[in-house]
Amino acid sequence: MSSPFPTLAIVGLGLMGGSLALALRHDRSPQKIIGITRARATLDAALARGAIDVASDTLDAARDAEIIALCAPVRTILAQIPQLADIARDGALLLDMGSTKRAIVQAMNALPERLTAVGGHPMCGKEVAGFDAAAADLYRDQIFVLTRTERTTARAFDAARALAQRIGSRVVELDAARHDEIVAAVSHLPYVVAANLVNTVGAFAQNDAQVWDIAAGGFRDTTRVAASDATMMLDILLTNRENVANLMRAYARRFDVLADLLNAQDEQALRETLTRAAETRRPFKRQSKF
Amino acid sequence: MSSPFPTLAIVGLGLMGGSLALALRHDRSPQKIIGITRARATLDAALARGAIDVASDTLDAARDAEIIALCAPVRTILAQIPQLADIARDGALLLDMGSTKRAIVQAMNALPERLTAVGGHPMCGKEVAGFDAAAADLYRDQIFVLTRTERTTARAFDAARALAQRIGSRVVELDAARHDEIVAAVSHLPYVVAANLVNTVGAFAQNDAQVWDIAAGGFRDTTRVAASDATMMLDILLTNRENVANLMRAYARRFDVLADLLNAQDEQALRETLTRAAETRRPFKRQSKF
Repeated sequence: MSSPFPTLAIVGLGLMGGSLALALRHDRSPQKIIGITRARATLDAALARGAIDVASDTLDAARDAEIIALCAPVRTILAQIPQLADIARDGALLLDMGSTKRAIVQAMNALPERLTAVGGHPMCGKEVAGFDAAAADLYRDQIFVLTRTERTTARAFDAARALAQRIGSRVVELDAARHDEIVAAVSHLPYVVAANLVNTVGAFAQNDAQVWDIAAGGFRDTTRVAASDATMMLDILLTNRENVANLMRAYARRFDVLADLLNAQDEQALRETLTRAAETRRPFKRQSKF
Repeated sequence: MSSPFPTLAIVGLGLMGGSLALALRHDRSPQKIIGITRARATLDAALARGAIDVASDTLDAARDAEIIALCAPVRTILAQIPQLADIARDGALLLDMGSTKRAIVQAMNALPERLTAVGGHPMCGKEVAGFDAAAADLYRDQIFVLTRTERTTARAFDAARALAQRIGSRVVELDAARHDEIVAAVSHLPYVVAANLVNTVGAFAQNDAQVWDIAAGGFRDTTRVAASDATMMLDILLTNRENVANLMRAYARRFDVLADLLNAQDEQALRETLTRAAETRRPFKRQSKF
């Protein structure tokens, strides 16, 4: 189909932005793609892979775009939104791909009425960052959350949905507060739990290579997300602090109870707890696709 | 090569025992394999897949074997070892595949001197249990820990090593105490952390299907091991209680510190903590093979 938005600017050419560019190229979409990032080497790599048509190291280059996809870490996006209030052309659509939504939607609500904006969060990712990790199929068959803002017109929402669907995602609409609460549970808490596991085992292992040598698939899977980019995760945790902190408290309380049951060798209660976890987890797919 | 132990009994035909039988069959090893388990359906399935030559629902059938591989959950193995003291033929080798080693080695030390015994722990597994999940390649390229007991002769150790190598494993020798301490860190703590994560998110989600719908690859990988068989894990935790409890305390203390840093929005300390986790985790393979 022909696109109603012939020019797309992608701000941030890391895993998410780079994959967006590659997915649209893979699909032979008609857009002209303007890639924007400060890193010259990334711009060169994106041009070399044919992911973008135009490379720029300044946000000003977004003035030519009908859609501006914001693909940087959350707090960078928060800084870019007010800058784009002056840069973007009339009627342009800002669509972000940040992992938390309340702060971003708030910033979008403050945009001038001549612009439109939709919050977005593709529920996929890898623990490797950067354009080198980008892949045309990153979004395929993954959920792409869209969140309405005070700058979301019907046309803007349709355009955001069309973009998400064109890269193979399944769109789910959520309001910002509910999105942030859910991802705190299913994404941010797992990350914190995994990072803390790595640091606990790291302190146990010290420099004993044999400990890591023995670590098998269970350790690798449980801790995969702990390798995520620290800057990206820091932005996520700090912009979803209350939800994450609430869930960390709930997690810690439950963990203490489990430790008490083990110390007391309370076999029946332990069995109930472990069985509940197994039965809750089993219906899910075994593993991520990456 | 021709085997010095022509008859092998496998006690327990779940994931581990079933995979052992299939791996030896796959390799066209010359052993006669006696499969022993109480579940008639499992015996029938193992016969039908050609995994075993002889099926029996009683431990007495192990009397014909030169090697007896104990592949049940740990506390079942602990009950079987003294029974085999009367059943096994002179010179027979008992090799267990339990996930903790101190209690089992202690039980093996009490065997009569006419028997030999080596502790074993293949560092692989899937979160699915039972013969249906068994696979000929489960052990390939995985570490197989061997632990000497007071009943380990040079010939017995060589036979245990040969068996582990024949199914494609890499043998690492560890004493029982060190084994149990290491696996508490790299296997049992990850399991407890994952199970607690599933139960925390489960309590948050209640019956809200949308929460699970949004859960992406990160949640799936972080919690994969939580689907493990509860009986198997209960045996492991109860026979490695002190090591696991120590590490749970260390984990909980560190988790509290992390929560405090987040609540205080201590960006620098948070960044250091998350960066340390990422840098510790990155050298590992991304994911398990299952």
